[in-house]
Amino acid sequence: MSDWHQSSLEVDTAGRGTYDVTDRIQRVVGETGVRIGLCHVFIHHTSASLLLCENADPAVRADLEAFMQRVVPDGDPLFNHVQEGPDDMPAHVRSVLTESGVAIPVTRGALALGSWQGLYVWEHRHGAHRRRLTVTVQGSRD
Amino acid sequence: MSDWHQSSLEVDTAGRGTYDVTDRIQRVVGETGVRIGLCHVFIHHTSASLLLCENADPAVRADLEAFMQRVVPDGDPLFNHVQEGPDDMPAHVRSVLTESGVAIPVTRGALALGSWQGLYVWEHRHGAHRRRLTVTVQGSRD
Amino acid sequence: MSDWHQSSLEVDTAGRGTYDVTDRIQRVVGETGVRIGLCHVFIHHTSASLLLCENADPAVRADLEAFMQRVVPDGDPLFNHVQEGPDDMPAHVRSVLTESGVAIPVTRGALALGSWQGLYVWEHRHGAHRRRLTVTVQGSRD
Repeated sequence: MSDWHQSSLEVDTAGRGTYDVTDRIQRVVGETGVRIGLCHVFIHHTSASLLLCENADPAVRADLEAFMQRVVPDGDPLFNHVQEGPDDMPAHVRSVLTESGVAIPVTRGALALGSWQGLYVWEHRHGAHRRRLTVTVQGSRD
Repeated sequence: MSDWHQSSLEVDTAGRGTYDVTDRIQRVVGETGVRIGLCHVFIHHTSASLLLCENADPAVRADLEAFMQRVVPDGDPLFNHVQEGPDDMPAHVRSVLTESGVAIPVTRGALALGSWQGLYVWEHRHGAHRRRLTVTVQGSRD
Repeated sequence: MSDWHQSSLEVDTAGRGTYDVTDRIQRVVGETGVRIGLCHVFIHHTSASLLLCENADPAVRADLEAFMQRVVPDGDPLFNHVQEGPDDMPAHVRSVLTESGVAIPVTRGALALGSWQGLYVWEHRHGAHRRRLTVTVQGSRD
């Protein structure tokens, strides 16, 4: 037997940075009763993305920001798509270099993440945004 | 109840650039009758990839090309795998930095993309190619 | 009818480099009896990742290493997260730029990879590690 569950989540960001959604996604999985399967998380935007990342030392995510800022600097004169400001096109590039969708195994009713893995929404714009996710949980209750 | 559907698509490219396949994938989803689930798109190549990207301003995709050309320039002397020309190895790197497979939620029988999200085949070689995709739609008709 | 199968694999690495797991994953798929569906592979780490890559010329993967070494050099003074050494933070960045999970279509009971596609574990640390994967195979036996 196979079950399908789908729900929406909203994540309010306060501008560029990473926002831990691991616990919220775990709660969605728990409510479905699925024991073995997959949990797919999708972000409906092209200037924010999803990140599976080390979850213990916040310096890792600060270093990731520094890396992206070096590779895709705000205000880069390379870019023509600048209508929404100097962080507009860099946000799209960062989104393309990371993930819009992430699937995580569900094992014994829980997200089977590694000990050091957390799931984050990565806001790439400097302004605050409301970001919409769809969580699809599929699998078996047996 | 869970349904599985799989079909092949061919995309003829005219060389490096992005090719919108959103409508073709949407048509495949519609024909399956799946109401809630996931649509997985896979490209069977290592020198072309898939891209979920802003779909309103073509300058975004032109800027993405410019970014990749700067980070992974054709003819980069770093590379030894040059048998098929100066765009051979850069095509593989671009493919690794982007996606070979993308899963998109299916909601109420349609691809649940954000307002500004389109799905593109990104041809990384300069020559024209026929690219093969497999679309797997899974979910429930209820 | 829909089937769900999940199993664990361990991959022992001898330090930085790519390790072909295509045949091992194919064997898991074959044992499930699933004829049409998806095989999802997940790596439970943030300093090793998964790579779908050209499988014929080893120079491709050597060139990928050279590319990453240029973009994210070991010992980069940009990074503050250096507790585990000069390859610690670069390993996290490489993991973010590539994939922690890969889904591959299953067609006629086999992984539907392109002729030149192989699946690799990419170890980003210099030291040897035991890496854990979860393989989830879902689909129909019909």
